[in-house]
Amino acid sequence: MLADSYPNPKREAPDIKTIYQPIQKDLDEVEKRLRSVGKVAPAHLSEILSHSLKGGGKHIRPALVLLSGKFNDYNLDHLLPMATAIEVFHTATLVHDDAIDNSTVRRWRPTINKVWGQDKAVLLGDYLFAKSAELIFVTQNLRVIEMFSQTLMTISSGEINQSFSAFKLEQTYEDYLQRISGKTASLFSMATESGAVLSHAPEKQVKALKEYGYNLGIAFQIVDDILDFTATEDEMGKPIGSDLAQGTFTLPAMLFLERYPRNNPVRKLFQNKGNRQENIRLAVESIRNSPIVPDCYAKASGYCAQACKNLKQLPDNPALQPLTELANYVVYRKR
Amino acid sequence: MLADSYPNPKREAPDIKTIYQPIQKDLDEVEKRLRSVGKVAPAHLSEILSHSLKGGGKHIRPALVLLSGKFNDYNLDHLLPMATAIEVFHTATLVHDDAIDNSTVRRWRPTINKVWGQDKAVLLGDYLFAKSAELIFVTQNLRVIEMFSQTLMTISSGEINQSFSAFKLEQTYEDYLQRISGKTASLFSMATESGAVLSHAPEKQVKALKEYGYNLGIAFQIVDDILDFTATEDEMGKPIGSDLAQGTFTLPAMLFLERYPRNNPVRKLFQNKGNRQENIRLAVESIRNSPIVPDCYAKASGYCAQACKNLKQLPDNPALQPLTELANYVVYRKR
Repeated sequence: MLADSYPNPKREAPDIKTIYQPIQKDLDEVEKRLRSVGKVAPAHLSEILSHSLKGGGKHIRPALVLLSGKFNDYNLDHLLPMATAIEVFHTATLVHDDAIDNSTVRRWRPTINKVWGQDKAVLLGDYLFAKSAELIFVTQNLRVIEMFSQTLMTISSGEINQSFSAFKLEQTYEDYLQRISGKTASLFSMATESGAVLSHAPEKQVKALKEYGYNLGIAFQIVDDILDFTATEDEMGKPIGSDLAQGTFTLPAMLFLERYPRNNPVRKLFQNKGNRQENIRLAVESIRNSPIVPDCYAKASGYCAQACKNLKQLPDNPALQPLTELANYVVYRKR
Repeated sequence: MLADSYPNPKREAPDIKTIYQPIQKDLDEVEKRLRSVGKVAPAHLSEILSHSLKGGGKHIRPALVLLSGKFNDYNLDHLLPMATAIEVFHTATLVHDDAIDNSTVRRWRPTINKVWGQDKAVLLGDYLFAKSAELIFVTQNLRVIEMFSQTLMTISSGEINQSFSAFKLEQTYEDYLQRISGKTASLFSMATESGAVLSHAPEKQVKALKEYGYNLGIAFQIVDDILDFTATEDEMGKPIGSDLAQGTFTLPAMLFLERYPRNNPVRKLFQNKGNRQENIRLAVESIRNSPIVPDCYAKASGYCAQACKNLKQLPDNPALQPLTELANYVVYRKR
């Protein structure tokens, strides 16, 4: 079963609760462990930790760890700390991103930097990275432990690259892919690869699951970048057009500029001409009602189709269906 | 040979180059590896990495790793990556500290946040933490790998604690010790403990070297806090009185307030009364010429004496002398 090659705008996203059903009990345990990360910390830290970790996220990355472990030795002694670690890792990157971008709202709640200041956000992110490394260490698996430093290096150097290219128009589709590969796909593929490795999957399966995670991550980020134009603030839990406001040149903005090069509000915004808010509003309005949106979705669907192809290299297993459904979820989700 | 129990103000600090002599060749290799960390990175990253790593620091922490490895199996395949890792780790904390404090100068050079902005500084710090973890991973020693996450958790939660207690006067000497133990002594003891563990030292020696590192770290930080009042900007490579400016209540300021409770400029500063710069200037002037300075030095000397006592539990070895001299260096250094 492949993800649709072209998204049907009337189609509803598969229900995430239904997809998670085979691992729900274990995901609940991950949730419990995430709460306890906040509880066991020193007093001052406890409150900000808990705030950062109970964001009501979709927990896709821990779900990927667990589902990827289902094909072989589903050993929860290793998979649960790893699944918890990957969500803590992800949270650390969000906390630092918000601090850097001066974002005030995330997942419908005020950000750490908004409530406690940028200094606390930087230090909390550091603590969360360390906590993630501690949780991964529980597995005592050197191959998985190594993924921590490799992935954090990939993500942070990708973000530095993004930061240097902010408000620059000379960026290609390849630059864009490289950026989202670093900032998003690397953590998705760490989730699936670590789940496979910790369950002692044969190398061929490790490779297939790692590539599935990578392709899913690219699709996820393309859709994220689309939703930053098409969703509502209510759906996203943060302001719309925030990528443009940060000078991040995402796929929809790229196609928009390519197709309508004259008097384009994205160019004006990036060149600091005219009214900033008005340029953002105009760009969002123009893009959300244009064929650019389905064209971007087609790109995302292509990566999801590729992800589903990767799954074909795996043996028949009850985890195949939720992993395939996740690929559809990633494309059809509204937030 | 114990460190003097009371510092003689006319005494010169031992020459650090002489102390390092038995390990100078290996420290040069660490320096070379630090430079190569900057060179092998992606283009954008390379410049800021190199800026952060060639700070002209004293490299005390890598020296501690190497000297602690001298008592047993001095295996450079493990000790060199570890020594490099600990300096990279230390640099990461400095880069984040400067970003948080909006510091503009460090080691006589503009900070990362000053030149490239706070966003780059946060991301560069993340990259450096990851690079440090990668270097530690080279040792393949699980016990040492675990120290990365434990120490980073200790340091960042200590800094969060410090940040929450900024500009608060209700702090005891014990609070102060706990803070500097978290933010400085933990990394010193990681340096000595890891050197011992990687050279396969017997447990008794590991413990003695770990405690030596801890006591040396406490002494180092007390002296750092004294120098923030008594040194010149030229000697320190950063502005004097910067702790007070950040609201960090260090030992000299504590003793000053305790002994001169009336109309005290530290209280006024922390309670945001009167002219801020004038309060800082007055506090610095009052403290630097008072008996508070030798009293603080006596505390630092006490910890150095304790560090030298820890060394007594080690077998006779050429590394004993440089480790003892380092304790004197830490107290008598002028910067």
